[in-house]
Amino acid sequence: MSLLTVGTVAFDTIETPFGKAENVIGGACTYISYAASYFTHDICLSAIVGGDFPKAEIEELKSRGVNMDGLEVVENGKTFFWAGRYHQNMNNRDTLTTDLNVLDDFNPVLPQKYKSCKYVMLGNLTPAIQKQVIDQLDGSQKLIALDTMNFWMDIALDELKEVLKKVDILTINDEEARQLSGAHSLVKAAETIQEMGPKYLVIKKGEHGALLFHKDQIFFAPALPLLQVTDPTGAGDTFAGGMMGYLASTDDVSYENLKKSIIFGSAMASFCVEEFAISKLKHLSMDEIETRVQKFRDLVHF
Amino acid sequence: MSLLTVGTVAFDTIETPFGKAENVIGGACTYISYAASYFTHDICLSAIVGGDFPKAEIEELKSRGVNMDGLEVVENGKTFFWAGRYHQNMNNRDTLTTDLNVLDDFNPVLPQKYKSCKYVMLGNLTPAIQKQVIDQLDGSQKLIALDTMNFWMDIALDELKEVLKKVDILTINDEEARQLSGAHSLVKAAETIQEMGPKYLVIKKGEHGALLFHKDQIFFAPALPLLQVTDPTGAGDTFAGGMMGYLASTDDVSYENLKKSIIFGSAMASFCVEEFAISKLKHLSMDEIETRVQKFRDLVHF
Repeated sequence: MSLLTVGTVAFDTIETPFGKAENVIGGACTYISYAASYFTHDICLSAIVGGDFPKAEIEELKSRGVNMDGLEVVENGKTFFWAGRYHQNMNNRDTLTTDLNVLDDFNPVLPQKYKSCKYVMLGNLTPAIQKQVIDQLDGSQKLIALDTMNFWMDIALDELKEVLKKVDILTINDEEARQLSGAHSLVKAAETIQEMGPKYLVIKKGEHGALLFHKDQIFFAPALPLLQVTDPTGAGDTFAGGMMGYLASTDDVSYENLKKSIIFGSAMASFCVEEFAISKLKHLSMDEIETRVQKFRDLVHF
Repeated sequence: MSLLTVGTVAFDTIETPFGKAENVIGGACTYISYAASYFTHDICLSAIVGGDFPKAEIEELKSRGVNMDGLEVVENGKTFFWAGRYHQNMNNRDTLTTDLNVLDDFNPVLPQKYKSCKYVMLGNLTPAIQKQVIDQLDGSQKLIALDTMNFWMDIALDELKEVLKKVDILTINDEEARQLSGAHSLVKAAETIQEMGPKYLVIKKGEHGALLFHKDQIFFAPALPLLQVTDPTGAGDTFAGGMMGYLASTDDVSYENLKKSIIFGSAMASFCVEEFAISKLKHLSMDEIETRVQKFRDLVHF
């Protein structure tokens, strides 16, 4: 089934204790699309870039089954740029630069074909833009997932609550779940957030795994302990892309299949962090992915 | 099989966002012994208290199958006292008071019967005292586990490394594993720490679960997301007590059984935090414990 991915496409400069990657391709929509492309070749991308964005990168995404008709290229504009530096512990980072550039004028107008995509992954953007995308859909969607962050809870909570009414899955981290709900217990937080709209809440905890909440059911997907974490950038988006790509390919939105999708998302994220930026996501095989999913199975089996 | 538990028996005053418990019974050895007592009634306790320690509490432990011959009661001394206050997030706490009192003179001399206990759980104490206990054992032990903390890594690292050569399992938290090994990756940390002596490393991550490392194998036990965490005090000791109690009762030190023991330990810890201090650990049934272990199974099943 078709998957619509919406979000940022960017240049990133990333510093970690293990090195530096300058002006590499990044952005939530990029990670989502690469991760999803291992599961489905029916992806529609909506994003904005400047004339400085390499045509070869656009062609590469096309070759992976990503429809780029929804990529707005502002020839005389510059692509969104983000620079960050990770602390020694890799769990925290400082943002050094955020140049919105053309992203400031992102006004997604979905091509006709996009409006009937059955699965939708809305990457982290202003809630107003996320709502604008949803409002263009034809209503035939099977599952709409939305990612957001504490920044929007701070400055655009009302808009965020509006868009939450319209989505099926919300993906946020544990601190964001606590902020959004006002509850410390994640079980209580999940109850409160489900009342806001999403039937499913996915809480991403980075190196501590991910939780899926649905009614009174809880599923926990561990993170795989890795010998080397090189660059955590994009891990959350890769997780979401793997999850939604798997769901679109299996076209099964049962709770049991959602659990599996979270394991596939976690597996994709575990590859992502092993190399800088999207490097590793460009060269995986389904065999490698299946082998890693088996490792997740072994990790918790008793 | 018999289980020797060594550590503090204390009075605690605990403040959490959910209330305050004053001068309640605490101490690592207490939590370990209560948790283990659900699995075996052949427990030997070694600790020290003052004349102010309630005789009824000693009798209660005896009634649960805990041999108290190794409890030194200093009639004219005061029991070790600890007071702490948890932050709103419950993951951090400030120590308000630490009165060592009689603990300052703890010089454990094991009763003859204790020396042949097949399973040994050394609660957090100075590494020198932990070594003194091991040196009195008769060498017939099947499994010796040791708990420690960053404080001893800071001020008594050489003594700690000496005692690590003599134990089979080390239980510490993730930051302590990183400090002890000098490695950020827990996989690398586990390799380094296994070279120091312990064949098994258990990394306790509180609300994020626990990891078991053995050679190149990794097992992950999640923590059960709870509606209400009232008081995290003693959760790590309860985990260790449940783990070692289960191992002593099954008398099986295979890797497969160690995995199960970690789930039982996690289940016991999940009960511990639901009420203040040892309250909940006093009144559980095996049915409740088995039901909770099943919840851990369901939590990760896909």
